[in-house]
Amino acid sequence: MNDEIRIIPVPGIPEVRPGDDLNALMIAALEQRGLALEDGDVLVVAQKIVSKAEGYLVQLSEVEPSQFARDYAERTGKDARHVETVLREAKRIVRMERGVLIVETKHGFVCANAGVDTSNVEGAETIALLPPDPDASARRIRDGLERRYGVRLAVIISDTFGRAWREGHTNIAIGLAGMLPMQDYVGQDDVFGYTMRVTTICIADELAGAAELVQGKVKQVPLAVLRGVEYVPGEGTLEMLVRPIERDLFR
Amino acid sequence: MNDEIRIIPVPGIPEVRPGDDLNALMIAALEQRGLALEDGDVLVVAQKIVSKAEGYLVQLSEVEPSQFARDYAERTGKDARHVETVLREAKRIVRMERGVLIVETKHGFVCANAGVDTSNVEGAETIALLPPDPDASARRIRDGLERRYGVRLAVIISDTFGRAWREGHTNIAIGLAGMLPMQDYVGQDDVFGYTMRVTTICIADELAGAAELVQGKVKQVPLAVLRGVEYVPGEGTLEMLVRPIERDLFR
Repeated sequence: MNDEIRIIPVPGIPEVRPGDDLNALMIAALEQRGLALEDGDVLVVAQKIVSKAEGYLVQLSEVEPSQFARDYAERTGKDARHVETVLREAKRIVRMERGVLIVETKHGFVCANAGVDTSNVEGAETIALLPPDPDASARRIRDGLERRYGVRLAVIISDTFGRAWREGHTNIAIGLAGMLPMQDYVGQDDVFGYTMRVTTICIADELAGAAELVQGKVKQVPLAVLRGVEYVPGEGTLEMLVRPIERDLFR
Repeated sequence: MNDEIRIIPVPGIPEVRPGDDLNALMIAALEQRGLALEDGDVLVVAQKIVSKAEGYLVQLSEVEPSQFARDYAERTGKDARHVETVLREAKRIVRMERGVLIVETKHGFVCANAGVDTSNVEGAETIALLPPDPDASARRIRDGLERRYGVRLAVIISDTFGRAWREGHTNIAIGLAGMLPMQDYVGQDDVFGYTMRVTTICIADELAGAAELVQGKVKQVPLAVLRGVEYVPGEGTLEMLVRPIERDLFR
């Protein structure tokens, strides 16, 4: 039925290396699946392949840890070069206790280890950083695939973050193009005619999480297409996702 | 294709009143849509209709606010009877500043106003509480619909919560039955053979958010069916969703 949403995994993207043409790899995978993109499709792309294609990888052997990083690593049993890399990605340390290092990244995201991690990166001595401008990454993908398919698309770059108060991680949006991240119910009347005051739904995060349900971690499906989504086209940015510090009670 | 997930809205549930047979209403709506539940389907049910059917509604005219509630309401321009109701639902106040009242509910959820709200409740003087045992609510739905359709199902009760650090709200799980809420990648090898240490995905929250994409707020679609989801059947509980206070850096 046409009010459904379909979450479609797109396997077949090979191991991505710095300098690879990510759009070409995604188009080949879409063709391999026999999936032609349609007007309004939302593509959710895992951050890891974006970082790899753009070359935001760090060789631990080339990292000279500071005294602060060495001291902290020694106390917590971590790799000082990894700690140093996290610190370099951080704008501010939010929590540094019980062996957990939660920072605010230069984008404004609050997350463990500044989003720096080693899983699914080739070579144990190589770690991947978040792309410095995930909105620009999303726009490049959006532009390339819109040109190829002649349709209007939205793109979300997703990553796996922990949350306050709740167990487990979920995938959320770290950058986007072609859509506004929020679905705004503020000021709309509900079915009883009362004006709802403060329900703004971050559908970008819900879409990223929905995509994770088919992407998994060990299945290596970094791309999913969501079809049938109602969203407002427009130039959304990651600044719309991040709560300004002066309105944040938990930073 | 059969590796897709479908998010199917189920409209046609009328206004729910205390004492209504929620399972019968949902079965009628499913039949009206011509949708027979299948083995493994996940039903996401909005908290509001559960609270209404179970009678967890409060008439503001019957609430006698405490001195504390009256003082706070006066300072912040709120309804003292509403504040009083929030306080009665709270185990602990987490933040009480800038006109925002964030509490830990008796379930352990950290959210604004203890999940108490007035939207989509008939009568401006009536407010809805969270159900006191959302897992039991989910089990009753699961049991009734499994009996009716002769298949194994999972049920999630969802509600709309804000988050630390990020703008906007998302729908997350407040109770469940028939599935474990977490998909555990801890200790599994990724494609390069490294052991991943700490990726536990809360698919219950991702499913609740995915369902919101078709449920909306003003469309009054309190039920969605997610078909094609990979999950671990079992008796999940809301305790598995809530981070214990001794492991929480943000409470």
